[in-house]
Amino acid sequence: MIPVKSYAALSKSTELEPFAFERRAVGEMDVLIDILYCGVCHSDIHMARSEWGPALYPLVPGHEIVGRVAEVGAGVTKFKVGDFAGVGVFVDSCRTCDCCKTDLEQYCENGMTGTYNGYERDGKTVAYGGYSSRIVVNEHYTLRVPFTSNLEAVAPLLCAGITTWSPLRYAGVGKGHKVAVLGLGGLGHMAVKFAASFGAEVTMLSTSPSKEADAKKLGAQHFILSTDEAAMKAAANSFDYILNTVAAPHDMNKFLNLLKVNGTMLLVGIPPEDSRISAAKLISKRRSIMGSMIGGIKETQEMLDYCAEHHIVSDIELIAMKDINAAYERVIKSDVKYRFVIDMSTL
Amino acid sequence: MIPVKSYAALSKSTELEPFAFERRAVGEMDVLIDILYCGVCHSDIHMARSEWGPALYPLVPGHEIVGRVAEVGAGVTKFKVGDFAGVGVFVDSCRTCDCCKTDLEQYCENGMTGTYNGYERDGKTVAYGGYSSRIVVNEHYTLRVPFTSNLEAVAPLLCAGITTWSPLRYAGVGKGHKVAVLGLGGLGHMAVKFAASFGAEVTMLSTSPSKEADAKKLGAQHFILSTDEAAMKAAANSFDYILNTVAAPHDMNKFLNLLKVNGTMLLVGIPPEDSRISAAKLISKRRSIMGSMIGGIKETQEMLDYCAEHHIVSDIELIAMKDINAAYERVIKSDVKYRFVIDMSTL
Repeated sequence: MIPVKSYAALSKSTELEPFAFERRAVGEMDVLIDILYCGVCHSDIHMARSEWGPALYPLVPGHEIVGRVAEVGAGVTKFKVGDFAGVGVFVDSCRTCDCCKTDLEQYCENGMTGTYNGYERDGKTVAYGGYSSRIVVNEHYTLRVPFTSNLEAVAPLLCAGITTWSPLRYAGVGKGHKVAVLGLGGLGHMAVKFAASFGAEVTMLSTSPSKEADAKKLGAQHFILSTDEAAMKAAANSFDYILNTVAAPHDMNKFLNLLKVNGTMLLVGIPPEDSRISAAKLISKRRSIMGSMIGGIKETQEMLDYCAEHHIVSDIELIAMKDINAAYERVIKSDVKYRFVIDMSTL
Repeated sequence: MIPVKSYAALSKSTELEPFAFERRAVGEMDVLIDILYCGVCHSDIHMARSEWGPALYPLVPGHEIVGRVAEVGAGVTKFKVGDFAGVGVFVDSCRTCDCCKTDLEQYCENGMTGTYNGYERDGKTVAYGGYSSRIVVNEHYTLRVPFTSNLEAVAPLLCAGITTWSPLRYAGVGKGHKVAVLGLGGLGHMAVKFAASFGAEVTMLSTSPSKEADAKKLGAQHFILSTDEAAMKAAANSFDYILNTVAAPHDMNKFLNLLKVNGTMLLVGIPPEDSRISAAKLISKRRSIMGSMIGGIKETQEMLDYCAEHHIVSDIELIAMKDINAAYERVIKSDVKYRFVIDMSTL
């Protein structure tokens, strides 16, 4: 057993505080990672506070993990001690269903094993996340991190990055496409970077005029204030894709209107309530809405390799572990550009 | 000018009654069709009663038209006198936009010209539909009808047929696909015939147990009573496509649940109010919802040619013109298998 330091939510209403536990011993196919950095995802807050169903306390959040391999099991071939490694939103899956066999582990028919807030596949070992000093993960579910610097800004690629990469790639977004990104947060800022990198003409849609300059710095060519009715009307029927990152309630029909014939809204945000969709808006222009959730291991590796080659990382604010509760409050207010990352040396 | 006999709605609240008017003269590129049969689409009722916005009275409904060419303009090459011909939901479009230039006239960026309840592109000639003795249409918007018998059962292919054909073809439905059809009416019964003909394994989803035998006669292999919670649970994550023909309010999330990873709901029915969609249901399995509206002229011709070759027509009840008001009441009660068609010789 491997002793680990961490921060944890001990109950629904508490702030995160120091917590110590033991990781499982390193098995034949496992790697032990000394965690260097862990990103702060909005879902960490939802789960720590039992907002997405009852949480399993004590709960150690964190699924945007970058670290260095400290030990490998006897059967491990993908890593050696000293390699940089990453862990994302899940650490296991059934490995036998059609999804697992086709590199879509995130859609595992028997349910993926989340990086935290649940049990590993033995049904009894608690899965604790990345706000901690070390983690033990099967090598298949561990990513190679082909970066040598700026590792803190790599961490958010493991969730915010892959969540936007996957639908853009699945849709085949590239040169000649007009892509709008709805919402400029952790996900949205990665979506702008990726869509621009793939050669698309990118427009930021936002309710906040202050986002225009930021979006353009990230690679957007255009900006539309979504509260400006005239601008929205002028943009009707103009986009091939809208990547919708908004998790707050919003009027989707207003944005569906901006899609061309055959256009698709790629949905990655989950509003707290059902969205109202006009069938006529879809039917009148053969428009689609497609959901997408993170990405499989193979695809996540492709993204990391691409990002290393194209020098793409997240824009982050590095924080000390002790500042996590203040960071949570700022995430809730969308007061971060664009992801907090915890420097685990401060633990 | 060409004198025409017809039935028309004279106001929102009246029943349809006899009406006479004049068609435009046959222009250089026009064909004059003696109408033999016209199908009765539920949208005829909505429009006759001003339920889809204010109607243009007097209104002659009907956009599932089959007849015989009686006269052709000097420039017409597609038809000669005596040919069977068909007219569907639109009789013109701008002919210059990207959609018109790519055989997607139904999505014309400047708006297609409906077969009735509006004006032709000159902005002043009223477009009257197919509950009438004759119609004059530009040859491009007129379909060849490669049938020699059973023409009354061909008429509904021009709307109910192409409306279900187009999304099934666009999605590439065929052998190896599991397809569910939601709703067994005019559209649903064609969807079952087409999906089965394309080689898919077809399941009918219905709230009415009495539909099981009918659906199986049409080509469905399976039947699921959508009010049977256990059966719906057992069918979770099992379909590649659901063709949703239901225009009444219904719980779409319940049916999205039946789609596999990467599965798509093909939407052709327009419920009177917005539908409530769970983003999580889409995201958790990379599911999509795609709308689709009728089909272009080229595609409609392909469908008619395929239907002639594969002996596919609609199941209909042939009625006399004078019985149209009673037929409307039966359509509203879904009491028709599966389409009323007016025998225009009774006009």
